[in-house]
Amino acid sequence: MNKVILLNKRPQGKPTLDDFKFAEEEIPTAAEGQVLLKTRYVSVDPYLRGRMTDAKSYVPPFQLNQPVQSGIVAEVLESKSASFNQGDFVSGLLEWKEFQVSDGKGLNKVDSTAADLSAYLGILGMTGLTAYLGLTEIGRPQAGETLVVSGAAGAVGSVVGQIGKILGCKVIGIAGSDDKIEVLKSKFGFDAGINYKTAKDMKQALADAAPQGVDIYFDNVGGEVSDAVLANINNLGRVPLCGAISSYNDTEVSVGPRVQPVMVKNSVLMQGFIVSNYSAKFPESIQQLTRWLQEGKLTYTETVVEGFDQIPQAFIDLFEGKNNGKMVVKV
Amino acid sequence: MNKVILLNKRPQGKPTLDDFKFAEEEIPTAAEGQVLLKTRYVSVDPYLRGRMTDAKSYVPPFQLNQPVQSGIVAEVLESKSASFNQGDFVSGLLEWKEFQVSDGKGLNKVDSTAADLSAYLGILGMTGLTAYLGLTEIGRPQAGETLVVSGAAGAVGSVVGQIGKILGCKVIGIAGSDDKIEVLKSKFGFDAGINYKTAKDMKQALADAAPQGVDIYFDNVGGEVSDAVLANINNLGRVPLCGAISSYNDTEVSVGPRVQPVMVKNSVLMQGFIVSNYSAKFPESIQQLTRWLQEGKLTYTETVVEGFDQIPQAFIDLFEGKNNGKMVVKV
Repeated sequence: MNKVILLNKRPQGKPTLDDFKFAEEEIPTAAEGQVLLKTRYVSVDPYLRGRMTDAKSYVPPFQLNQPVQSGIVAEVLESKSASFNQGDFVSGLLEWKEFQVSDGKGLNKVDSTAADLSAYLGILGMTGLTAYLGLTEIGRPQAGETLVVSGAAGAVGSVVGQIGKILGCKVIGIAGSDDKIEVLKSKFGFDAGINYKTAKDMKQALADAAPQGVDIYFDNVGGEVSDAVLANINNLGRVPLCGAISSYNDTEVSVGPRVQPVMVKNSVLMQGFIVSNYSAKFPESIQQLTRWLQEGKLTYTETVVEGFDQIPQAFIDLFEGKNNGKMVVKV
Repeated sequence: MNKVILLNKRPQGKPTLDDFKFAEEEIPTAAEGQVLLKTRYVSVDPYLRGRMTDAKSYVPPFQLNQPVQSGIVAEVLESKSASFNQGDFVSGLLEWKEFQVSDGKGLNKVDSTAADLSAYLGILGMTGLTAYLGLTEIGRPQAGETLVVSGAAGAVGSVVGQIGKILGCKVIGIAGSDDKIEVLKSKFGFDAGINYKTAKDMKQALADAAPQGVDIYFDNVGGEVSDAVLANINNLGRVPLCGAISSYNDTEVSVGPRVQPVMVKNSVLMQGFIVSNYSAKFPESIQQLTRWLQEGKLTYTETVVEGFDQIPQAFIDLFEGKNNGKMVVKV
């Protein structure tokens, strides 16, 4: 039999085990053009919480009594598709099932000899692609420039900083605890870090850490942290906007210094993006990230939980901060 | 004697006549390699306000008790340079003086038979280049898209709108009087106009005028007008930031809704620029503008004030919106 995890009810506040329901069904068989997949690694991500709510958003909400979906790495057990062979590994947005069939649409083959399979849910998946493409396509770093990263201890931020170092930048990370700052420097090679929760004057702290000014600001947070960085932006500065998490829970529109005057004065480029804007560049980007990973120039942290049955608990644990780096479930 | 206009003090808020000082000096004589120039047309531009402030910017600030500089068309009265002949007309960044000498560096000859001399301070000068390059390099208009222009009745804005029409966009102009709106539509071919001074709800007025949303926002003003346009921006929208005149006279930092959340959500690009960022493209751009001008596809309005002594007042009047199109002073 095939185990399946359904959305039982919509979470109120923090998700609980009651919000999920296990079910069993027959293992499906692949029809012509389809593949039969066995789930190997499941990504659990905070953004899934949003899809569990019945609210209008840029992706439709999960349906009650239907399987939850997330990023998954699976093995092709059987193929009736010309595009895949038995034994291939693929990644894609798939359902929380031990086995499922797919027509192959949206699936990407992954190379199990080049990296651990779980990496394709993190540094060689959307996380790494977001960091790499946002930084290179919008930030366009040049050796010797100063790169500031907010949300630096997050999954994307820590990769951005490492790529900045590989490309020859001076890298300054902004995060919310001294422990995180220490990890940024000791593990991820950041040149400096600023704890925004304890800094008395962020604008001055930035000026001290970046005496040559800020050439690139990879922004994961928005809000007052970003105000302080932009006050230090250099002529022809670039600002990839990856997230604005500081505003996500605002009930009123967030207000702050208008950015236009400083952007006109300094010919600053600011660009919001989602990684799928650059999907044509995914293959070459994954190649580059894989090379750096193999050369030991990139590192990452992940928390691996074992067992299909543990998926809901692993997801819940995200909101308790029990993960260190990317959280995945090995099936 | 030679009349000269010096910066007397740095403006606080809106510039006033007290900020300038008239002086007289001997008319200089051209040394070997130099030309003696007689000023014929002087450009007054909002961006000069920035250079009157002692703040870090892309160009150094004007010095107190030194002549103000701006774009000027001058006649070569006497030439001891191999590059220029007596009777030539030239344009360049020159000083607010009736007569001055130059070594010719940064001067461009202009053809007084191809267009009115004042055009070389406008549609065939920095104004036209700013409109053309900001719109095409940053705005990247596609036929069928909706382009909104603020400061639309200004020198740059009216050219932006016309180029938008040539390139197949729906063009909506924002300006500060019904008369200006009428001119935008009747003379410059804008599809619609919004008077920001009388509109009850700018955000709604934009939504009504641009029911498909805004693909490109060519921003000359910043401030609340821009807040309203950005509330209507489309996915993958582009915002060339040409100016932020609404903030130039602010003595405190202008505050408004933060742009980052809407930019992340819609993958919006916003880019401040000055035309010299694109100087490599000036020759081909002037060719294109000249062709359109000759084909009757581009037209322009200028406000010509007469008299060297009127230069400071003409500059001040810019901030009261007293100009209609490019403001120049005929000397």
